[in-house]
Amino acid sequence: MDTKVLLGEKQIPTHWYNVIPDLPGPLAPVLHPGTLKPLTPQDLAPLFPAPLVEQEMSTERWIPIPEPVREIYRLWRPTPLYRARRLEQALGTPARIYYKYEGVSPAGSHKPNSAVPQAYYNKLAGIRRLATETGAGQWGSSLALACQMFGLACTVYMVKVSYQQKPYRKSMMQLWGAQVFASPSAETEAGRAALAADPGNPGSLGLAISEAVEDALAHEDTHYALGSVLNHVLLHQTVVGLEAKEQLRAAGDYPDVVLACHGGGSNFGGLALPFVADRAAGRQVRLVACEPSSCPTLTKGVYAFDYGDTARMAPIVKMYTLGHDFMPPGIHAGGLRYHGASPLVSQLLAAGQLEARAFPQRPCFEAAVTFARTEGIVPAPESSHAIRGAIEEAERAREEGRERVILFGLSGHGQLDMAAYDAYLSGRLDDFHYPEEKLRASLERLPKISL
Amino acid sequence: MDTKVLLGEKQIPTHWYNVIPDLPGPLAPVLHPGTLKPLTPQDLAPLFPAPLVEQEMSTERWIPIPEPVREIYRLWRPTPLYRARRLEQALGTPARIYYKYEGVSPAGSHKPNSAVPQAYYNKLAGIRRLATETGAGQWGSSLALACQMFGLACTVYMVKVSYQQKPYRKSMMQLWGAQVFASPSAETEAGRAALAADPGNPGSLGLAISEAVEDALAHEDTHYALGSVLNHVLLHQTVVGLEAKEQLRAAGDYPDVVLACHGGGSNFGGLALPFVADRAAGRQVRLVACEPSSCPTLTKGVYAFDYGDTARMAPIVKMYTLGHDFMPPGIHAGGLRYHGASPLVSQLLAAGQLEARAFPQRPCFEAAVTFARTEGIVPAPESSHAIRGAIEEAERAREEGRERVILFGLSGHGQLDMAAYDAYLSGRLDDFHYPEEKLRASLERLPKISL
Repeated sequence: MDTKVLLGEKQIPTHWYNVIPDLPGPLAPVLHPGTLKPLTPQDLAPLFPAPLVEQEMSTERWIPIPEPVREIYRLWRPTPLYRARRLEQALGTPARIYYKYEGVSPAGSHKPNSAVPQAYYNKLAGIRRLATETGAGQWGSSLALACQMFGLACTVYMVKVSYQQKPYRKSMMQLWGAQVFASPSAETEAGRAALAADPGNPGSLGLAISEAVEDALAHEDTHYALGSVLNHVLLHQTVVGLEAKEQLRAAGDYPDVVLACHGGGSNFGGLALPFVADRAAGRQVRLVACEPSSCPTLTKGVYAFDYGDTARMAPIVKMYTLGHDFMPPGIHAGGLRYHGASPLVSQLLAAGQLEARAFPQRPCFEAAVTFARTEGIVPAPESSHAIRGAIEEAERAREEGRERVILFGLSGHGQLDMAAYDAYLSGRLDDFHYPEEKLRASLERLPKISL
Repeated sequence: MDTKVLLGEKQIPTHWYNVIPDLPGPLAPVLHPGTLKPLTPQDLAPLFPAPLVEQEMSTERWIPIPEPVREIYRLWRPTPLYRARRLEQALGTPARIYYKYEGVSPAGSHKPNSAVPQAYYNKLAGIRRLATETGAGQWGSSLALACQMFGLACTVYMVKVSYQQKPYRKSMMQLWGAQVFASPSAETEAGRAALAADPGNPGSLGLAISEAVEDALAHEDTHYALGSVLNHVLLHQTVVGLEAKEQLRAAGDYPDVVLACHGGGSNFGGLALPFVADRAAGRQVRLVACEPSSCPTLTKGVYAFDYGDTARMAPIVKMYTLGHDFMPPGIHAGGLRYHGASPLVSQLLAAGQLEARAFPQRPCFEAAVTFARTEGIVPAPESSHAIRGAIEEAERAREEGRERVILFGLSGHGQLDMAAYDAYLSGRLDDFHYPEEKLRASLERLPKISL
């Protein structure tokens, strides 16, 4: 077999896979954060265009991908599926390890897979500008790219501490034409209030969400865009898993286990959800979400209704959560520092359709270094969690002396995260454990919902 | 046609193309910097393994690529050829623009194409360690990667000012297992002498070369490796142009003009030399080297014998040169700041087989921004020179109302160069012109050679 399985552009999926009809039960309602009443499509209209609201609750199993979206996907899709032979040899494992590599997108991660259709549907709806928040910048840069491709303006509220410490992603957003504000900013009521209370406020993702939502609500021509958690985001990301299945078929293989890192769920859902359909059809395949043990939403959280954001302005959804005001330690995998999880992933996990595993930071970097020294590619710190999970599966196969087919998602490259590798290689990397007491306290502050 | 032309791994070239038999005349001799006498293969044996010395002067047109080298190439090769439709539309040009993208390698540029065979031949010769110099770090990181793949140790002398200001590439080398010293270092006589004279010496590429060569000469198990200029380096890089020709054939097209940026010649030679064979066979294709007007080796230099390095320790070769002690301004395209040029490229240029054009820094960044906003990919500052050249060709085609097929080399991505884009976008980018007086002075210090 070749090192990579490549598909032609004609094999870019024509439809996204919607897992909703294959869920083990009905979707839980989404609640208004103020009234605690179920949200209606009308409630979402000021923020999202109609097709995205429809996708949020559609029961169609296959949703056509608009041709202008596939046109932009062609700039980097289909992405390669690699057989990690050099890693297998280094581990001395009888397992066959495959990885699907999303770092070839212009933004360096899987995030543009949803940014592009979101920009497209908004353009179609006559919207002129999108507002969003970003932490370290993976989502903000992807949305900037997508808006540029469809001639939309883009405003990004970037958590101030990242804006100052990680200027590279900020410059990338500006290169793609976005306007970037350090959050808290003077542009919104929420930002001004935060600055008045504390001019040195370093910002948080929750606050940046508040600013972006306020911006969108205040301007007729502006909508809001979110890069994870929501059903339509996971839907768009299924191009990853659909391609991977096609590529494995071309390689004559099928996975025993599929692993991907999990923050809000967009990367894990993108790779794993298309395999849920196979499980529904009776196929045996384990689906494992890999998360940081310092932010152990799926492994230590509870399945309950909770706010999507710290500021309690976002809708309340039923999901695995650590509590909306749980503040995870500052690990390098910034994309995995979210207190909640995708409702779709949560429901499947609660029903026993998925597994979840948590890994501390240092073993993940150890796995990432092993990977970089065998396969070459420098992995994003987020992706290193999936590598850690895959290596442990491969080692177990070796101990058991059994074949095993492992597929994992390499969601992005880490060339902009070299400071984190520097800290690891020089022994300066902290290994946070999950703060048990903080977690107990934050879980006590869950909203009391009875439906 | 698709957006990209992809080849299968079986179509990775099996042979490199050696332009020496297609040169318009015999190779000029290479002279010892001390004796000024022609160098013999024996003189090179302490630095390079025999196969590389042979490749340096081989008259075989096709040199087989060893299978273990192709095996590593498979990690990212064949690289994609793109049709730049969105750029064409933005320019409103009737030209068809193609670009060959080398940024998909793990190091993010074309440099591993030669680093991998250099590491391989040294491993075969029983060498345990390679020493090299690097400026901004593209070559150093590529050699670190290649050494890691073949189990060789790697020592990189990195110009101190880059070591301090661009720590990302240093960390990447360390991630791939290399030992990196800021040059001048305390590890060599040359470094210690420089530090004794000036403890604050910021380093230079010339000095780093001296340190790496001294290290290699002082250790039996250690060889030296160079990332550009030499014939064998350009030979290895011809995989780029050979693939591009195959891909254009698949697209049913042939270029009227081929453009690539030129520093020492490895990128330009890699793309353009395979087309020299076509010219020899009577085909019409223009080959244009694009260089910075602040370091205008090919457009303002003289074709003469000169030292390869500032310290006059490297061999003397016949090449286009600005004088071995010409110090170009600190442009962001660090890979194009070399006073000389590949002897192969120089001989072809002197014979009228190639063209050369020089571009100031700001118009190159302007072109790079246009490119990033249409095609998505963030180009390396070096590559932006080829984009500038290609855009001017496309605009000329538009003015003349004629079709034209343009191929250019996108040698690497610029995600680690966002500070340069930041300077450009905020209007802080200087536009250096070539320092005419300094050039006149340095040309007066060329060695007096009569053969």
